[in-house]
Amino acid sequence: MGQLGLKIEKLGDGKVTARLPYNPGLIRPGGTIAGPWQMALADYAMYALVLSGIGRVELAVTINLNINFLRKPGPADIIGEGRMIKLGRRLAVSEVTLYSEGDPDPVAHVTGTYSIPPEKPA
Amino acid sequence: MGQLGLKIEKLGDGKVTARLPYNPGLIRPGGTIAGPWQMALADYAMYALVLSGIGRVELAVTINLNINFLRKPGPADIIGEGRMIKLGRRLAVSEVTLYSEGDPDPVAHVTGTYSIPPEKPA
Amino acid sequence: MGQLGLKIEKLGDGKVTARLPYNPGLIRPGGTIAGPWQMALADYAMYALVLSGIGRVELAVTINLNINFLRKPGPADIIGEGRMIKLGRRLAVSEVTLYSEGDPDPVAHVTGTYSIPPEKPA
Amino acid sequence: MGQLGLKIEKLGDGKVTARLPYNPGLIRPGGTIAGPWQMALADYAMYALVLSGIGRVELAVTINLNINFLRKPGPADIIGEGRMIKLGRRLAVSEVTLYSEGDPDPVAHVTGTYSIPPEKPA
Repeated sequence: MGQLGLKIEKLGDGKVTARLPYNPGLIRPGGTIAGPWQMALADYAMYALVLSGIGRVELAVTINLNINFLRKPGPADIIGEGRMIKLGRRLAVSEVTLYSEGDPDPVAHVTGTYSIPPEKPA
Repeated sequence: MGQLGLKIEKLGDGKVTARLPYNPGLIRPGGTIAGPWQMALADYAMYALVLSGIGRVELAVTINLNINFLRKPGPADIIGEGRMIKLGRRLAVSEVTLYSEGDPDPVAHVTGTYSIPPEKPA
Repeated sequence: MGQLGLKIEKLGDGKVTARLPYNPGLIRPGGTIAGPWQMALADYAMYALVLSGIGRVELAVTINLNINFLRKPGPADIIGEGRMIKLGRRLAVSEVTLYSEGDPDPVAHVTGTYSIPPEKPA
Repeated sequence: MGQLGLKIEKLGDGKVTARLPYNPGLIRPGGTIAGPWQMALADYAMYALVLSGIGRVELAVTINLNINFLRKPGPADIIGEGRMIKLGRRLAVSEVTLYSEGDPDPVAHVTGTYSIPPEKPA
């Protein structure tokens, strides 16, 4: 997903802010940013949240992602504001609300579940 | 669902608090309150939120409900704290977090989408 | 959920058929069977599928359930036809389609994810 | 999404087959195809299904997408096999199972809900 230019802007205390910078290549017919780019931002934000929570380098794995699209975002950066709902030993659940920069009404709401690999014995 | 004794405790400003009173009939093997009762509480809370938002008596219809179970609730009332995410003309999306009374860690997180019937011409 | 009278009718080869017998207590205003009873049937069917798949008595745990309501079922038994989508070592994913008995058009479609407890060392 | 090279291979009778051609730019650390590309394929397939079902050129809108990731796909094309679950007047619900070409075990399962715009009066 590197080519999307996704960025983490804040991360800590079970919260995350991430950004998908606008570029014209993201636009689809109708002048809106395609749903899969929105999902990419949400997954990226939640993944950062999980890794920061478990404090380990092993890979976590997305097992479920549920997205509700609320409005069509126009040509602007998309901001994701996320929080951890539960960080367990084997599973983490978090949510992200997506906004079109400068507009207080959300464009999408996403929940995700991540599987955390077992810690390797020392 | 009347026999569950579900109650709305607060409703307004796009927020809702609802309660599923504990009774021993809700318990399943393992001493926990079965998932479907938790879903019933969440749907009930979100439905009240939608009706209060549209301010009309016509029936709204649940079209999608997604629930993440986080912990097994013990033998206590379950409280649902919900909020409207988007109230549109045709669709409403909301979320509810469920708690076992007296415990700050959530037991489940639910999002729901409701279809709003078209307003009848006067 | 015992009082609902849920039954497994067929189980094997990664498939399940389950039934929610009709009774007037399930009906809600509008003459339809409430969504939570439909969810109860789906969860019950998928849970049986998972236990039959892992062949062990330890409890599996529902971690995510996503339901799309398609039509309002009338006053009749509801039949759930389910299948295992993936049975892994730590997680199982399955789906169930719900029908109102005698009607070929489905009333709901459900996917569920279950966490499988680690096998205890012998 | 044009740059992904997504293709519809079969479409008719409420079924769809779509393809995401492999290219090295889709790979993420770990050698797998990133989740958002999988979601893009699923959304593309379901969208084609809905448009073919309603037989009109007006835009449908994705309102909910729920994805369960089952296995990490390796470096190969991804094939989506989808079917319509319900095509209503206002809403359509469909599902897609994703496969890594040449492997019979699915890599992901997706359900989606689409809002259908009202038909314009003639």
